[in-house]
Formats: sequence, structure tokens, C-alpha cells
Amino acid sequence: MIFTETELRYLVEQPLGRVATIGPRGEPQVNPVAYWVDTDAHRIEISGPALRASRKFRNLEADPRISFVVDDMASEPVGPGGQTGRGLEIRGVAELLTLDRPLREGFSAELIRIHPRRVIAWNLDAPGGNARNVT
Amino acid sequence: MIFTETELRYLVEQPLGRVATIGPRGEPQVNPVAYWVDTDAHRIEISGPALRASRKFRNLEADPRISFVVDDMASEPVGPGGQTGRGLEIRGVAELLTLDRPLREGFSAELIRIHPRRVIAWNLDAPGGNARNVT
Repeated sequence: MIFTETELRYLVEQPLGRVATIGPRGEPQVNPVAYWVDTDAHRIEISGPALRASRKFRNLEADPRISFVVDDMASEPVGPGGQTGRGLEIRGVAELLTLDRPLREGFSAELIRIHPRRVIAWNLDAPGGNARNVT
Repeated sequence: MIFTETELRYLVEQPLGRVATIGPRGEPQVNPVAYWVDTDAHRIEISGPALRASRKFRNLEADPRISFVVDDMASEPVGPGGQTGRGLEIRGVAELLTLDRPLREGFSAELIRIHPRRVIAWNLDAPGGNARNVT
């Protein structure tokens, strides 16, 4: 499986992720996004209002490489040295889909599905980091 | 000035930002970061534990282009259609500095200073977006 049970639960609980894409001149771009988690298929999908016209969507049409991070600060120490930061970064490639209807009213019918290649988690299952390839 | 008073206040109040950089094969990477705001100089600086050895720091040594986002969800609607999301993305180039001593105990002495080129704000000073070059 791609994610641990703890990671899946964390992904489901968090409200927002941030996604990095590559712009037309090879420059980085970062945006907050709403996302959905299919905990059976270990699948993460991103949508939002006017996604089709967004720079990040057009970036992914030209270069599907994507990095997605979900993180927060815990209410008590969870890591080495009293760290409260925790989360996971998922690097992979994006598949761009168009649904018959949007996932939520006001969102566009387009969807970004992440195909993970590498997962870097910190202070979730245990204090410290955990980086692994998931291809 | 680079930022509005509202944007500066927002940057000071938020606990974390997320930064996107370009990896060795031109791929995107995104990481949560602690940051400081100099509200007089309109300057944003990033540091953290073991920054020097981090992939993002080495990415910036090879390609200084950076994108930095600070965002959250407001407790009440602040945007069109009842949106609660708000924040700003800052695109620019990074200057890498080494201090005599770290900004905070446990952090490394290295610092990433952002030189903004473009600011994209949403639902901060007014409902909707505000994108502008700041060079």
C-alpha cells in the first residue's frame, strides 16, 4: 500500500493541502488546494473553483510532475526536540481528468489525480522522518 | 511598497508558510517553513532546523527561483460565493545568507531571503484576487 493507516487518517482530517507545479519558464508555483482521499484506493484527488482555467492546471498540462504537501502543527510535541510540525509530502505525477459533474457545487468538473512516486512523512507514525519510494 | 498593510499584518499573524523550489531534474518540491517578516523593509526570511542540509536549500543553490504561499481558511466568508480561503503567493528569487548565530535555538544559521517579483493575494484587502508585479 502507498500510505500507512496513520497517514491516511491524517490526510482525511486535514482541511487543505498545498501543491507545487512547474511554470512555463521552469519556475516553481505553489497553491493551496482542496483535496479528497480515497482511503481504499489510496488515491488523492484535487479540485476547486475554476480549476480548468487556473495556472496550476495549465502548468500540469505542460509538465505533469507535482509535489503535494499536507502539514500542520500539533497541539503538543510529536517530534524530536519538541517539534510540533508534522505532515507528509507526496511527489509524483498528475493525471488530469474531467468528470460528468463537479465533486462539489461551485467547483469545476476537472480533477487532478496524484500518482505518488515518493512519500516523505514526518512525525506522524513515529517521531522523525520516513522517506520512501512508492512506485 | 511591496505589500499592503493588510497583507503585512496577515503575514505576521500566520504561523507557517509553504515554499516551492525546483529539484535537480526540474521537478517541483514543496515544504512547510517557519518565516519571519520585517514589516519595515517588507522582507520575508525563512529558516529552520538543519536548513543547510535540506533538499530545498540545495535546490535554491542550484536554481534561486522560489514561490512562497501563506494561506488559511477564515472563520467566516471573506470572498466571492462565500469563500473562506484567503492568503497570498509570493514569486521571486531567493538570496541565501549565513548568520553569525541562528534566529532561534535549534535552527541553523542559514537563512533564505525572498526577493519578491510578483504578489498574488486573494480575499485579504478585499474579496477576490489581486495580482501584481512588484519589481
